[in-house]
Amino acid sequence: MIDFNQCNPTLLSEYIEGRQVKNLRELFDEMNIVDLAEIVAELSVEEIMFLFKILRKEISAQLFTYLPNDVKAQMITSFTSGQIKSMIETLYTDDLVDFLQDLPANLIRQILKEADHEQRSEINLLLSYPSYSAGSLMSLDFVELKAEDSVKQAITKIKRQGKDAETIQVCFVVDEQRNLVGSVSLRTILFEDDETIIKDIMDIDVIYATTHDDQEVVAKLMQRYDMTVAPIVNDELRLIGIVTIDDMIDVLEDEVTEDIQKMAAILPLEGSYLESSLSDIVKSRIAWLLVLMVSATLTGSIIGGFEEQIELNPALSFFIPMIMSTAGNAGSQASTMVIRGIVVDQLDTKDIFKVLSKELMVALLSGSVIFMANMIRVLVFMPNTDLSVHVVVSTTLFIMMVISKMVGGLLPLLAKKLNQDPAAMAAPLITTIVDALAMLIYFTLALLWLGI
Amino acid sequence: MIDFNQCNPTLLSEYIEGRQVKNLRELFDEMNIVDLAEIVAELSVEEIMFLFKILRKEISAQLFTYLPNDVKAQMITSFTSGQIKSMIETLYTDDLVDFLQDLPANLIRQILKEADHEQRSEINLLLSYPSYSAGSLMSLDFVELKAEDSVKQAITKIKRQGKDAETIQVCFVVDEQRNLVGSVSLRTILFEDDETIIKDIMDIDVIYATTHDDQEVVAKLMQRYDMTVAPIVNDELRLIGIVTIDDMIDVLEDEVTEDIQKMAAILPLEGSYLESSLSDIVKSRIAWLLVLMVSATLTGSIIGGFEEQIELNPALSFFIPMIMSTAGNAGSQASTMVIRGIVVDQLDTKDIFKVLSKELMVALLSGSVIFMANMIRVLVFMPNTDLSVHVVVSTTLFIMMVISKMVGGLLPLLAKKLNQDPAAMAAPLITTIVDALAMLIYFTLALLWLGI
Repeated sequence: MIDFNQCNPTLLSEYIEGRQVKNLRELFDEMNIVDLAEIVAELSVEEIMFLFKILRKEISAQLFTYLPNDVKAQMITSFTSGQIKSMIETLYTDDLVDFLQDLPANLIRQILKEADHEQRSEINLLLSYPSYSAGSLMSLDFVELKAEDSVKQAITKIKRQGKDAETIQVCFVVDEQRNLVGSVSLRTILFEDDETIIKDIMDIDVIYATTHDDQEVVAKLMQRYDMTVAPIVNDELRLIGIVTIDDMIDVLEDEVTEDIQKMAAILPLEGSYLESSLSDIVKSRIAWLLVLMVSATLTGSIIGGFEEQIELNPALSFFIPMIMSTAGNAGSQASTMVIRGIVVDQLDTKDIFKVLSKELMVALLSGSVIFMANMIRVLVFMPNTDLSVHVVVSTTLFIMMVISKMVGGLLPLLAKKLNQDPAAMAAPLITTIVDALAMLIYFTLALLWLGI
Repeated sequence: MIDFNQCNPTLLSEYIEGRQVKNLRELFDEMNIVDLAEIVAELSVEEIMFLFKILRKEISAQLFTYLPNDVKAQMITSFTSGQIKSMIETLYTDDLVDFLQDLPANLIRQILKEADHEQRSEINLLLSYPSYSAGSLMSLDFVELKAEDSVKQAITKIKRQGKDAETIQVCFVVDEQRNLVGSVSLRTILFEDDETIIKDIMDIDVIYATTHDDQEVVAKLMQRYDMTVAPIVNDELRLIGIVTIDDMIDVLEDEVTEDIQKMAAILPLEGSYLESSLSDIVKSRIAWLLVLMVSATLTGSIIGGFEEQIELNPALSFFIPMIMSTAGNAGSQASTMVIRGIVVDQLDTKDIFKVLSKELMVALLSGSVIFMANMIRVLVFMPNTDLSVHVVVSTTLFIMMVISKMVGGLLPLLAKKLNQDPAAMAAPLITTIVDALAMLIYFTLALLWLGI
């Protein structure tokens, strides 16, 4: 008996080296394929090829599905045409297409050559939808019922069509033109008498998406309405496919990654960190770096306008980092919360006054704390210093707290109002804006107060 | 016939005002309850109470589930004990408990008083688990099979237990001690002959979580293994409940919000932006603001150490914002990508050298671009200026690009290695660290190069 918890790439390599087919088959029958795929991904192409030769077709297909895309591409180039054929037959079409989308055109052609006519047209249909659309993600394997079917007929259909279907939890009902007219859960069907007509038990208020809807729209829809399967229709409302919740979770995760990247001044980068090429990473980061660098020179030129004051009182420049950092952080806290609120549909442009009054109150409170904290810091650690500069610094901090929180709260909602992406109004941009304002206020106050 | 697309709070108020019971019932039968709940939430308590009086029990319960928590609490205080009783009977226990957790103790007692013995002990069991644990989220309504059951017996059980169950898509198999021994999907059962024994078709490699596992652990598990239902066991491996994927999507969303908040130096804040109290928001933000303000004084005192240089050449201070902003943004870009990589399990501490070498290459490339961009900016817009200061500034930018990217890439992985939260090593902290380094390098270079 193998201890499955001990399984690791070295053990797997040993089994393969020793051609221990029986042990390997047992291992793949018993252990979870997701965990195994992670281990297999570390093996050499030759070793993985051996596994594909000895494992059952279904297990091979599952293993293939969970391997990273770069390993998949390597496998495809090593597969015989028979192996490709069997892989196409066993994989779900949507999983296959998901992977094909990232392959070079010549490899796609090589794979399509092995597909039979029906498969080829299915694959081509899915490949024809734009990336990130519902159409490109959907599965064509689903159960389709007619409104006039009896429960008994429906169960027969489910048993017949359901073997290959991605899910049978919800079945969709279509009319003669294959237009979507309703949905009914397997559970509802099971609890009804054989003679009941589907029409009488189906839900006619079906939430659906269209093939060209963005995948994020579909994911949000499924989340809002607690759906595990969503029907995808074309422009004529004909039922074309379904998407399931497990695919959507990955979509939601990708969208969050994109949001987080945008909020850190990174242009959306496809693929994982390690998989991304050097030039893609540089490209995704350099644009905003340059924009923000140039806009920061505005702050510099504001300081430049007060050259005389600095010459007379160089101590003023010591507080530049503290004021800039505090104002920037205060602004990005506000903008982050508002952006996230917009993304999860808890905030809308109509809430703009609620947000501003909340941020104002938060700013007055935290501004007072910051003001006092800074004065106490000075009194405790620098008891013999001239207080007037510190009063200017603390007052600037207080005023900047109010301005930063208001700017941070306002700009994402304004962006949303103008149909722009609120996430673009995140920390880096907010920081640059409030930095400039902070320096303007700081030196103006110094000029007025200290008379220098 | 009502045009459901026209439904809005005003229309609903009119119907209620006019006591148009038939129209209201029709509306609630036909329109999606999620959309309706959003509209109902805008009505007055009296209006909502009227709806609860006239709507069918099942519709009322669904409506109640989708109302915001503050509206729910208002309803509960207005409900008669009969209404509370009927609500307890109709709601899923996990939805009820989810809401009870946020209520004051006296209201909870008032509700428990109306529950029958079995319900009360179920509610108390769920309430006894810590917030955010799998136990507090799970549903107690599920289908339980025995390994010796035949498919025919299993279907009978499913039909009997399944009416109230949260899902029947996957059924779990237990032994005499109610220990979890396997799982079998409804689909597998349907495709088998009546006489087949569950033992022979069940999956014995069941992924499960325990009642005290953090909800995030369960969500990650379900995401990793593409599960739509997860069994929850106690320490003796006895099956206690199930959690379903729709609850988990909300958990994943909350965890992302928490991550994003941490990355903007905000302590995790429960509840939505508008629902959170002023003092909760201030508390969540002020701690990091103070910490970062104080640590920014370090940068200030570095500048202070070069007081003489600034006095001699005040122009040096004009470039402080640009250098700080560019270094900070470069560092937060790197840390954001690495933190996100860790969160989505694409990066681990073992990848530390891959990350550092990648960031180094990215830094050298973007550093060169930044260096040149800054020199070109000077040559084009300030053709008559002395270049030496700008060479110092551009060189500082180049060096800081390398340092910032390395620090940003390293610290989150280091935090992970030390079992700390990588998200704490996000933009605000990274910025403060690289700001200090930037000023040190800038003025040291100025001292050496310009001899001032």
